[in-house]
Amino acid sequence: MEKRKIKITIEYDGSAYCGWQTQKNGLSIQSHMEETFFLLTGEKIKLTASGRTDAGVNARGQVASFETDCDIPDEKIARAWNGKLNSDVRVLCSERADENFNARYSAKRKTYRYSFYVGETERPLYDKYNARILRVPDLCAMNKACEMLKGEHDFKCFLASGSAVKNTVRTIYDCFVKQEDEIYTLEVCGNGFLYNMVRIIAGTVIDIGLNRLSADKLASALDSGERKGLGKTMKASALVLYSVEY
Amino acid sequence: MEKRKIKITIEYDGSAYCGWQTQKNGLSIQSHMEETFFLLTGEKIKLTASGRTDAGVNARGQVASFETDCDIPDEKIARAWNGKLNSDVRVLCSERADENFNARYSAKRKTYRYSFYVGETERPLYDKYNARILRVPDLCAMNKACEMLKGEHDFKCFLASGSAVKNTVRTIYDCFVKQEDEIYTLEVCGNGFLYNMVRIIAGTVIDIGLNRLSADKLASALDSGERKGLGKTMKASALVLYSVEY
Repeated sequence: MEKRKIKITIEYDGSAYCGWQTQKNGLSIQSHMEETFFLLTGEKIKLTASGRTDAGVNARGQVASFETDCDIPDEKIARAWNGKLNSDVRVLCSERADENFNARYSAKRKTYRYSFYVGETERPLYDKYNARILRVPDLCAMNKACEMLKGEHDFKCFLASGSAVKNTVRTIYDCFVKQEDEIYTLEVCGNGFLYNMVRIIAGTVIDIGLNRLSADKLASALDSGERKGLGKTMKASALVLYSVEY
Repeated sequence: MEKRKIKITIEYDGSAYCGWQTQKNGLSIQSHMEETFFLLTGEKIKLTASGRTDAGVNARGQVASFETDCDIPDEKIARAWNGKLNSDVRVLCSERADENFNARYSAKRKTYRYSFYVGETERPLYDKYNARILRVPDLCAMNKACEMLKGEHDFKCFLASGSAVKNTVRTIYDCFVKQEDEIYTLEVCGNGFLYNMVRIIAGTVIDIGLNRLSADKLASALDSGERKGLGKTMKASALVLYSVEY
């Protein structure tokens, strides 16, 4: 068959992987997927994802693209691939894409969710995909902090140390915390995110909700680009790349 | 210290256990808890739970009672015990109860939740605690079926075969299905439940939602006490004993 571009939507539990991107040490989701596609078709492909997810981070709607000349019909690639993948990675959908489509460069909006609960005791049913905080946070204060993050800003203060990225200006289209039963979810939608940015935003918004950090401190950190005083990087397993829009 | 009655609220992920109740084969949650209490205090206790949960069933609000003369203050028992328990079992709260309190016989209302999602593909982030169905169910039809279950009925038709219980009359106080994002949750509150009853109710309500079973069939099964034609027993890991009221 002719070479063609395929777009796939992927869900994964990242707990067993060193992250999306292939690295020297540890199994990445990208490597696992490329290797199983080879087992399936004998063809070596190179997957391009909307962006990397870090070690332990989950995805409900990661998107990737690749070129192939395999003879499996476009829509049936998902099911065939799933037969070879570990049960913690699944292709939810495979479809034909325009030859110019690139899952990374064509992405317009990405949405992440960060979930947490309140309790003195670790909760067996919640611990895997949620962070735990010790006191009830002020939902209103958290949402005021979220409002401050909306719009185009230099998010240098939310950049993890050691990152070499040059342009730290991003646009946040939406940002809020909602509560359902016992679970709080921070949802952030933007045109792109820096390394660890959502996990540091989560730590900062939670600190403001717990009155351990003032909204003024967040404002001045956004101005100065200095992370000092902002919240910590929250644990990876409570973060989900929820969806990517094109 | 004097002998006194303690009430505990317990959360557990039941996947590694043969159920609540101590049995000859396999580790039960009850045995694990009694053994770790012995490790903690040197005292042999006997736990009485609000009811058994089957192998693989989870609890967010199981309640149990026991007598003890240990010298740990009532409210601190939870934390001390948690230090010995496997991480999939946690005592959320320990408190002093009246000497006549019995977690089984004093229980007035129990609430179970059964969760499921729709999809052709297994979902890595949802599979552990949710069942999967293949088509979108009719939420309205499911809730009409739930209405039929409310009130006092002989629920013999929902009794798993092999169960020796005599009185199969129970009262359902509330029963409904709600949808949040991609997850459907059946919630059933009643004064008691037969062996596998909630899981068979879930299978039946889902079959009605998928138009594989008519509401008439449910009505005649309730009348006749015959399970024939009702839904299957759905998987254990999507069931949670949500709360017990006294």
